[in-house]
Amino acid sequence: MRNFLITITFDGSHFHGWQIQNNAITVQEVFQTALYKILGEQPDIKACSRTDSGVHANMFCISMKTEHRIPAERLKGALNNFLPLSVAVLDCVEVPLEFHARYDCKGKRYVYKIWNSSVRNPFLEKYALHYRWNIDEGLLDKASKDFIGKHDFTSFCTFDNRKADNMERTVKSFTVERNENLILMSVEADGFLYNMVRIMVGTLLKIQQGKIPADGIPKLFEQRNRNHQGVTAPPQGLYLDKVFY
Amino acid sequence: MRNFLITITFDGSHFHGWQIQNNAITVQEVFQTALYKILGEQPDIKACSRTDSGVHANMFCISMKTEHRIPAERLKGALNNFLPLSVAVLDCVEVPLEFHARYDCKGKRYVYKIWNSSVRNPFLEKYALHYRWNIDEGLLDKASKDFIGKHDFTSFCTFDNRKADNMERTVKSFTVERNENLILMSVEADGFLYNMVRIMVGTLLKIQQGKIPADGIPKLFEQRNRNHQGVTAPPQGLYLDKVFY
Repeated sequence: MRNFLITITFDGSHFHGWQIQNNAITVQEVFQTALYKILGEQPDIKACSRTDSGVHANMFCISMKTEHRIPAERLKGALNNFLPLSVAVLDCVEVPLEFHARYDCKGKRYVYKIWNSSVRNPFLEKYALHYRWNIDEGLLDKASKDFIGKHDFTSFCTFDNRKADNMERTVKSFTVERNENLILMSVEADGFLYNMVRIMVGTLLKIQQGKIPADGIPKLFEQRNRNHQGVTAPPQGLYLDKVFY
Repeated sequence: MRNFLITITFDGSHFHGWQIQNNAITVQEVFQTALYKILGEQPDIKACSRTDSGVHANMFCISMKTEHRIPAERLKGALNNFLPLSVAVLDCVEVPLEFHARYDCKGKRYVYKIWNSSVRNPFLEKYALHYRWNIDEGLLDKASKDFIGKHDFTSFCTFDNRKADNMERTVKSFTVERNENLILMSVEADGFLYNMVRIMVGTLLKIQQGKIPADGIPKLFEQRNRNHQGVTAPPQGLYLDKVFY
């Protein structure tokens, strides 16, 4: 038995997320279809995370066990040949048998992109949130620092996840930067609860709108109540940017 | 009578170019449809140029005459409301009656984008040419300088245009730059013949491949023969970037 770590990137606008579904096209489905064409089998694959419909990945990792003897570099080439153009394999290496793309993940970085201009950008329709009113990136960068550290993120996730035993996550960094009309929010953590990034972004936008005070995040953590926070920012601005092992 | 200068941007992957056609959706068609909804008339409109199917525009200019009394700023807002998301109006101002978007154009700048990596970029499938083999941007930047100046561009346009009386154009600048895996070719001229940018880009790629010598461009100008040059680079990498008046 051999184990591969496969690093891919995909344009999420073409997919209903990673995880296989009955009625909608997903990245997992096209990936498994390509694997079957190459290997003649359906190997057991593990992904670093799920992603929601419309969410993009600059980097997404999969581990896969197979008896097949194909060299790693040839598997990469064959996958790029059989996958649709909206997915690409960046890297493919053999790893120890015990490696697991999700359990061995030490952390992840997400980026959220906002096109901040009164006029939309036709090229970013599916690749950024369009926000018409001025964003003060300095204000939001400062406020975002209150997300950093080990916290119970109950207030910043979608109800589904309340079942999870442990709602604590450690945010290592959070930055809000401007590059002309593009606002980039970047957050790194040891793990993320369901919709956590999109709710943190929505909360920062509520701070921008004055609906939550700029120093209001610590109080929201205390409340452990999802209802008090910002809306969930839409998926098209979100990119899984880096996976750490 | 009033005359407007309207500056738009569009994602060309949604359109079969600017100019109205019977059997395919074009930017002109959606623009005229939006105008009709706002003004209740089909005003005479002039565009700075045609663009081919799949070619993008960061900036594209239209002049339009109407008796309608709508303020320029309201026309901008209404157009952005009625146009599809793949087109946006950046600016709308009143100009003297004699202004003409094509005839008064002093020059244009095009940008051609190439994703230069062994692996494709899923996000740039419709927004750049994917070129797998290494590009030496220094070599091509140097070679591109031979396009600069006033020349007969017969060798660098598609046959259609040979009918044109005057094949002379003045290229003011040509640069080839790298930004990580992205190669940007930028060319400014007083005017462009049909497919001229895409053929100049194709010629530079033939220089990269060693099929044309690095100092071979002056000789190609002399030949005045389209058949000796590079292939026409595909449309998805091409952006009308700036229009000068």
